[in-house]
Amino acid sequence: MLKLFYAPHTCSLASHIALEEAAAAYTTVRVDFSVNEQCSPEYLHINPKGRVPALVTDRGILSESPAILAFIAQSFPQARLAPLDDPFAFAQVQAFNLYLCATLHVAHAHRMRGHRWADDPAAIAEMQRKVPETVAASYDLIERELLKGPWVMGDSYTICDPYLFTFAQWLEDDGVDPSRIPKVIEHRSRMSERSSVRKAIAAELYGFLAVDHG
Amino acid sequence: MLKLFYAPHTCSLASHIALEEAAAAYTTVRVDFSVNEQCSPEYLHINPKGRVPALVTDRGILSESPAILAFIAQSFPQARLAPLDDPFAFAQVQAFNLYLCATLHVAHAHRMRGHRWADDPAAIAEMQRKVPETVAASYDLIERELLKGPWVMGDSYTICDPYLFTFAQWLEDDGVDPSRIPKVIEHRSRMSERSSVRKAIAAELYGFLAVDHG
Repeated sequence: MLKLFYAPHTCSLASHIALEEAAAAYTTVRVDFSVNEQCSPEYLHINPKGRVPALVTDRGILSESPAILAFIAQSFPQARLAPLDDPFAFAQVQAFNLYLCATLHVAHAHRMRGHRWADDPAAIAEMQRKVPETVAASYDLIERELLKGPWVMGDSYTICDPYLFTFAQWLEDDGVDPSRIPKVIEHRSRMSERSSVRKAIAAELYGFLAVDHG
Repeated sequence: MLKLFYAPHTCSLASHIALEEAAAAYTTVRVDFSVNEQCSPEYLHINPKGRVPALVTDRGILSESPAILAFIAQSFPQARLAPLDDPFAFAQVQAFNLYLCATLHVAHAHRMRGHRWADDPAAIAEMQRKVPETVAASYDLIERELLKGPWVMGDSYTICDPYLFTFAQWLEDDGVDPSRIPKVIEHRSRMSERSSVRKAIAAELYGFLAVDHG
């Protein structure tokens, strides 16, 4: 059975939602960031990067959200979470998720994790100051060029949707004016109505589901 | 025919090498970063992100190196550039490339592209100061945990190899001591012997190949 290591309010939510959408058999294990559990020897044995998500499979352990999302789509083809038989359409899905991972997420991370790239508190504060501008620029590109609607890739729901939804949880905290990106906001609302999304969020925040916390 | 927009000394080299490995029919177009051509209206029409690589296909245009690399592997299965029939092994390939894209490349980018995340010159200088430490930490993880040898994924050459090789061009300039990562250095040497690598580098630097730059 698959086992997802996650932390609330992190990008692991996307993989959690995708596992729900795939109707996968899985359990979850919460990693407690408040006590820096992601850097504990036990967790580093699971994921030496000290990050979430990590997905334990019977073949080994996977990390990196876009890789895990594509793995879920390929492992549960009946869920139709990606265009698996069309290399170009699959690459479009991947390119979207890569933009979230390597541009939007990185821009966002300069608000709370600036210490990754600088030590001086003044430099970290200066990075934080620019976050509303850089995150908004990423969303502007998504709004203008990438989000086709009603789902990211158009009529078909894919692994792009839970990933965008996950980041969109944080856009107000990142200082982005939601009125400039109405398609993103509408997408976020549409996503929040899905039972998979509600179940994953409830499980992460309140432990409503009888998940095995291993 | 495929058309790759590239710039020398950037991550587009990985896609260029992969096209060679796949024996693809392709042309290249050089984007002149010295005059900021990547931000010209003409290029932004091709890739609104203002980055390379961009791969023009008969179905549309793709961006983001890991997405393009997987597209090449899937489009030319006879080249065996990824384990296409094994979702777990494919996810391992993707996870490696994601780590390069979202951690190593981002760490590296704080040396030359700090202006993406801060405006104050003192903050940008502070970011640059930390680059040797953050880039070395990424290579340490690759050396210790990820690079199986002789190729990244072990006995099989994959799309991980040109991507790692591309970043490894820059590690001395990033301030990393090569003696701490002997497996990475050995991999770089092994890669530099491949004819695909030599052809791609020669074409980018010297125009040795009769490529269509139209």
